[in-house]
Amino acid sequence: MGRRTTDPPITWLMQTALSRPGLISLAAGFTDNPTLPARATRQLLDRLLSRRATAEPALQYGSTAGDPRLRRLTAERLAALEAAAVGQLPAAVRTLCAPGGSPCQPAEPDAARLLMTHGSQQLLYLVAEALCDPGDIVLVEDPTYFVWLGIVQSHGLQCRGVAMEPDGLSLPHLAQVLDELRQAGQLPRVKLLYTVSYHQNPSGITTAFHKKAAILELLRDCERRAGHPIYILEDAAYRELRFSGPDEPSYLALPGAADRVIHSSTFSKPFATGIRVGWGLLPAVLYQAAVRLKGNHDFGTACLLQHLLAEALASGEYERHLAGLRRRYARKAQILAGAMREHLPDSLSWQDPAGGLYIWAKLPGKTRTGLRSPLFQAALDHGLLYVPGELCYAPDPARQRPANELGLSFGNATEPDLREGIRRLGQAWRGLKTK
Amino acid sequence: MGRRTTDPPITWLMQTALSRPGLISLAAGFTDNPTLPARATRQLLDRLLSRRATAEPALQYGSTAGDPRLRRLTAERLAALEAAAVGQLPAAVRTLCAPGGSPCQPAEPDAARLLMTHGSQQLLYLVAEALCDPGDIVLVEDPTYFVWLGIVQSHGLQCRGVAMEPDGLSLPHLAQVLDELRQAGQLPRVKLLYTVSYHQNPSGITTAFHKKAAILELLRDCERRAGHPIYILEDAAYRELRFSGPDEPSYLALPGAADRVIHSSTFSKPFATGIRVGWGLLPAVLYQAAVRLKGNHDFGTACLLQHLLAEALASGEYERHLAGLRRRYARKAQILAGAMREHLPDSLSWQDPAGGLYIWAKLPGKTRTGLRSPLFQAALDHGLLYVPGELCYAPDPARQRPANELGLSFGNATEPDLREGIRRLGQAWRGLKTK
Repeated sequence: MGRRTTDPPITWLMQTALSRPGLISLAAGFTDNPTLPARATRQLLDRLLSRRATAEPALQYGSTAGDPRLRRLTAERLAALEAAAVGQLPAAVRTLCAPGGSPCQPAEPDAARLLMTHGSQQLLYLVAEALCDPGDIVLVEDPTYFVWLGIVQSHGLQCRGVAMEPDGLSLPHLAQVLDELRQAGQLPRVKLLYTVSYHQNPSGITTAFHKKAAILELLRDCERRAGHPIYILEDAAYRELRFSGPDEPSYLALPGAADRVIHSSTFSKPFATGIRVGWGLLPAVLYQAAVRLKGNHDFGTACLLQHLLAEALASGEYERHLAGLRRRYARKAQILAGAMREHLPDSLSWQDPAGGLYIWAKLPGKTRTGLRSPLFQAALDHGLLYVPGELCYAPDPARQRPANELGLSFGNATEPDLREGIRRLGQAWRGLKTK
Repeated sequence: MGRRTTDPPITWLMQTALSRPGLISLAAGFTDNPTLPARATRQLLDRLLSRRATAEPALQYGSTAGDPRLRRLTAERLAALEAAAVGQLPAAVRTLCAPGGSPCQPAEPDAARLLMTHGSQQLLYLVAEALCDPGDIVLVEDPTYFVWLGIVQSHGLQCRGVAMEPDGLSLPHLAQVLDELRQAGQLPRVKLLYTVSYHQNPSGITTAFHKKAAILELLRDCERRAGHPIYILEDAAYRELRFSGPDEPSYLALPGAADRVIHSSTFSKPFATGIRVGWGLLPAVLYQAAVRLKGNHDFGTACLLQHLLAEALASGEYERHLAGLRRRYARKAQILAGAMREHLPDSLSWQDPAGGLYIWAKLPGKTRTGLRSPLFQAALDHGLLYVPGELCYAPDPARQRPANELGLSFGNATEPDLREGIRRLGQAWRGLKTK
């Protein structure tokens, strides 16, 4: 399996960033340094470790599925998020989450199907491992989270990309891709659809709830021919980093979701990325397999981190921190977008983000952005690193990867660096045009 | 792959322990609660988080291979351990670590080939994943660490067990097993030998250095017919928990080890099991593959844990804690062995441990210890849980698993519980005999 695994682009991008002093990286998914909760973490840990009764379980092994208190707090938090999001829906759309057609509350997330993991990435890995065999097909968004592509490659899976629209997957294109797979007799190999449904990394797109309903239905319709369930792996890592607009209910709010939706999220990005705790809510049939694999990987996520996060949630510190973080990223998103309007040609197009850490930009058709393109090299020469868009497209022989897109993150860079970075990109771009 | 993975016995044992209040478990690999370093951890974290300069990197993402400072400190610590152990060898044995036959210092462990992992178990998992394909063969000790058997099963590997003697593997039996594999044309499937070379879990056995030399040579001799390197995966998780006798050099002290030995260890057991940080030193050719896989699993171990351990090492707190821990386990081992002498029949045989957390006992030939045996059930009825010895033997059609052995841990139980637990086991055993 190691042989299948090539160096992921994230490694290359990180090395490039480290090896060029003075380089401004708008490529990393790192979070904002000044807002990292040093004081809150210090106080929470001090409290946790000052009494043997709370210190000992935090410093001891725990259970493979995760700390029971953190699982309960996570389930409660998710339930509250869902209830609030469903409440914000227009009545006409709210009926989507009721089997009978009348507005309803989503089902309570069940802590007994919650698995705590070492970052949400480990959950994604465990799901791929539990569910897929080499040669299986996963449906992905175009563009998608490039680390997922590493997981996919590690397991020898194939991808089919589905085009994105400003409110999530293109339904006609998803129908077309499924139809092509049906005609090619490949539906039995389709195991899941992977979607980053909130403020997507890298596009910033949030999937509208009515689209989620239609997507789940399209997949359901294929199951008879597939001969097995087709799961939705909903990665909600950026859901809590929303800074404008209403929250959308997750796939979990749809009827029948408990058997088809794997919902994963994380505490790392909303609290501190150095405290790696993610989680997944899985259909019962997959849950046991994922827990067993987790048992073989590491028999449980570090208790110190889990107990720390449970304290942060229970004390309200997590929520307080999150509120500040949202304001901070709202401001940084505005600064990045403002700099783009000021320094980059009008021919660039993008969608202002409502959350998350990313802006995805499309350049005029002929301007290439890839690792070997003149623009990428010129940007590096000017001291700016972006994510070449093509790295975020899965290998899929059925379509070409767009070569004129790029990803920018306002997560880690300072405000002056956001402005200066975009100024450099503008210089690099204009330099090309005048050559 | 999930389908291959069955519920590991550790899960069953843990559930059994949790579901029977009043049960004394001498089965868990948990560590001693009262010695968990709550005060030291609190102080180290307080110092780490009180300054932004040290707090921010601890709360941020890091690199996949691990924190550079912790990797350096780990390499230095390993080098010091090796030098001290080599220094303690008789001159005649010391020549084993010199290619030319004269006494030498072992090669410096190279921080550039060190990978920090989420507990050493993750390292074991990554190695199996990087190196092995389904159907491959791994050589294991009889008995072996049963969680390794879960990893092996997860990857669809076969095992061949090699008998253990009081100072490590039986060389004649290893030679015989290799010869059988050669005759069956199966050497090309043999990828590695897994050994817990210090105070083995579960047997307590430490492998003598002169045996390590002979084992490496026996494996080398098979490589031409295998058509590839046969690696030694040396799990040194219990090395630092030595409380009597001299330390043995690791396999790394042997000539050519850098290309054949994967050396793994952990900071979890010597410091705190709730702080899951393990590590591995890998041959260069495997290192890149393991780091890539680690990138796909979770792109790096939680920085908070790594920076905490670096502080513990650099401040001397780790070493101070370890000295106390060694005294504590020496005492608990003595109490357990004393209780065994007092309460159990003379027909029981075992080796007093010189480190680690375990005592392995052999019962008279006909007394069965397995999950369905009268002894195991009677012990449960009396409120005592032990590890049935057969769980620690790999499935291997070439030999029968001994049915009359059992494993006991003095790690987690209190001193009174060690005594009372063995008293209960004695009662259960005598109850059987009088029926």
